[in-house]
Amino acid sequence: MSAVRISKITITPVAFADPPLLNAVGVHEPFALRAVVEVDTDAGLTGLGETYADEQHLAALRAAAAAVEGADVYHTEEIYRRVQAVAAPDAVIASGLIGHSAATDRVFSPFEVACLDIQARAAGRPVADLLGGAVRDEVPFSAYLFYKWAAHPGADPDGWGEALDPGGIVAQARRMVDAYGFTALKLKGGVFPPEQEAEAIRALRRAFPDHPLRLDPNAAWTPATAINVARDLDGVLEYLEDPTPGIDGMAQVARLAPMPLATNMCVVAFAHLPPAIRDDAVQVVLSDHHYWGGLRRSGLLAGICETFGLGLSMHSNSHLGISLAAMAHLAAATPNLTYACDTHWPWKTEDVVAGDPFTFSGGALHVPDGPGLGVELDRDALARLHEQYLRSGIRTRDDTGYMRRLHPSYERRQPRW
Amino acid sequence: MSAVRISKITITPVAFADPPLLNAVGVHEPFALRAVVEVDTDAGLTGLGETYADEQHLAALRAAAAAVEGADVYHTEEIYRRVQAVAAPDAVIASGLIGHSAATDRVFSPFEVACLDIQARAAGRPVADLLGGAVRDEVPFSAYLFYKWAAHPGADPDGWGEALDPGGIVAQARRMVDAYGFTALKLKGGVFPPEQEAEAIRALRRAFPDHPLRLDPNAAWTPATAINVARDLDGVLEYLEDPTPGIDGMAQVARLAPMPLATNMCVVAFAHLPPAIRDDAVQVVLSDHHYWGGLRRSGLLAGICETFGLGLSMHSNSHLGISLAAMAHLAAATPNLTYACDTHWPWKTEDVVAGDPFTFSGGALHVPDGPGLGVELDRDALARLHEQYLRSGIRTRDDTGYMRRLHPSYERRQPRW
Repeated sequence: MSAVRISKITITPVAFADPPLLNAVGVHEPFALRAVVEVDTDAGLTGLGETYADEQHLAALRAAAAAVEGADVYHTEEIYRRVQAVAAPDAVIASGLIGHSAATDRVFSPFEVACLDIQARAAGRPVADLLGGAVRDEVPFSAYLFYKWAAHPGADPDGWGEALDPGGIVAQARRMVDAYGFTALKLKGGVFPPEQEAEAIRALRRAFPDHPLRLDPNAAWTPATAINVARDLDGVLEYLEDPTPGIDGMAQVARLAPMPLATNMCVVAFAHLPPAIRDDAVQVVLSDHHYWGGLRRSGLLAGICETFGLGLSMHSNSHLGISLAAMAHLAAATPNLTYACDTHWPWKTEDVVAGDPFTFSGGALHVPDGPGLGVELDRDALARLHEQYLRSGIRTRDDTGYMRRLHPSYERRQPRW
Repeated sequence: MSAVRISKITITPVAFADPPLLNAVGVHEPFALRAVVEVDTDAGLTGLGETYADEQHLAALRAAAAAVEGADVYHTEEIYRRVQAVAAPDAVIASGLIGHSAATDRVFSPFEVACLDIQARAAGRPVADLLGGAVRDEVPFSAYLFYKWAAHPGADPDGWGEALDPGGIVAQARRMVDAYGFTALKLKGGVFPPEQEAEAIRALRRAFPDHPLRLDPNAAWTPATAINVARDLDGVLEYLEDPTPGIDGMAQVARLAPMPLATNMCVVAFAHLPPAIRDDAVQVVLSDHHYWGGLRRSGLLAGICETFGLGLSMHSNSHLGISLAAMAHLAAATPNLTYACDTHWPWKTEDVVAGDPFTFSGGALHVPDGPGLGVELDRDALARLHEQYLRSGIRTRDDTGYMRRLHPSYERRQPRW
């Protein structure tokens, strides 16, 4: 048995066009950022990972890359320790709740995915087979609906059109369901006063009587507002996602809300699980391998959810095809991931992945057959999106700053209503 | 990618000589039972697992074997589901606390280990590499001390001699430490009144001033007795294992005991973790892949312990070399398994494993280099120990029944003191 050692790591920040999607803290900028992580080995096999590309995160990735060169790709626990030793102090996220191990988890994730890609390629098997194997061949995703402008100011319309009221949201949902076959609908809220967003949910219910519905105001509401909206939407929502900030606030709402509360904001690290479970603050956790420490640690999260009777869904930021493949393998191999996953996929027009390895049918994605993640880099596209990154001038995602440049009176407030 | 399908499963019950070790429910019979599970595949690779061989468990293993033939060895989640569907109802353990998934975990375990053995052999890597890779090359084990008779009635002495008082226990510890270099000592208690066993612990402390010490009376004490002994041994024990039965009783003791409480009795399934954590009933869980559903689910247990701030050690029943190899790979790849593991290894004089792949040094076992588990069957030995099983007449472990045949007035009582 000879080791398969990491000989080189290449981290390439890229920018891809993103529509003006509105949320609780502002609006998506014209370009979203991602970092593509390529791991080369002395055995000739290469693996891919994808993660955030904010400046501080890129610095942490580069420090980690230097630290893990020479490691055996099968020794991911050892790689985790090396990442923890060098990258975590630089990667602590603004939230005071995020501790040392959470910072490590975020930096470690793309390296772990790339190492599993390599291991799976070596075995001639899909990555899902390193996680216990797929229990489903098709992974269901939800339509991720956004309030949005027709175009970025000064730019051409993006083709999706404006969606600033219930009619616009229903039209957007119709188009997305027609194209992908999604069987669940999620509305990103926190943009308009809650009664307007509740009205949009009711319009979706009328237009799609059988689709499970979710509303995610990204902690824009006080607990009292959240309780009122939750009661108002009793029987309409599959779950209500992050209505209010913090574990304490969510616990207050959970005691009176008639539907489960989901989160990707107040439980985003293993350290958040004990208090959230103790207080029954959330009933569904949205997994995300980008910040839960890669695919195997996301499997740990899934097992914790199963053990403690929590539901499990999957969160998405704007992402490219490497992440979609990783999400699909993880979801396929997670028995208790029973909610349709989130994805920003339909909003994206550019990618670094070669060809089109992704087939949606009935809202579900066929898990790429592999070996490995089942995706390859398109090097021309990678170079083009890297050039776009350099030209874009965007170095850290700033939805609020972009909104304030357009609307100087805009203020970031949490909660807002 | 072609599947690696299970083409045949062979389950062989074996019996191996076991000394008259005393415990809270009686005494070890002259032979201990184990089942050797061989999984053959259409790709020509074979994997090994080892588990209990009590009659009811054997029946469940055979039903599960029939159900998983044809499955892909990489699809262990699918195999889990097949086992759950057929074997669990037959495998429910006597304890009312053990539910459906725990029964599945016990039956599934040897098949999972064998599948990982095959996957690792195919990759040319040790099994630890399927679990994130070894974070330690040497796995520390503890000396497992027992009160014992000099010989089984009517049989020749076993060479270890009698140990029925503190002097006998210290002599036994000395011999075991001299032979293996163990740096931690565990005494199986619950045999004599607690003050006598506390005296043995104090004698061990005097003879081995630097060895961490553990006492395990197997739930033989009431909570009040347990609290008294715990206070009496303040500063002497590393942890006190299962002093009293049940999560409620353990929680009572834990509130007043000065040292951590460990368990392999009141938390033996995932369903036991939420109440035990809620009540802070135990501070250390003894992992055991034979009943926690194999190596990956034992990894889940480890992650839960880390997340919720529980310590993690490892339990052992009388076992052969296949289990020792699996325990070593698991322990090597579990970052937070920081206590020396239990093993009955020194008490065993026969095995089914070829050669001697196990090297203890300073009380630690060098992890077999693999590929796979790093052990092979000695077919002559397997046939011999199977013959011994057939001749022994023992079909279900019964320490109490054996004791009562020798001492008819013996009664099983829990708690006893």
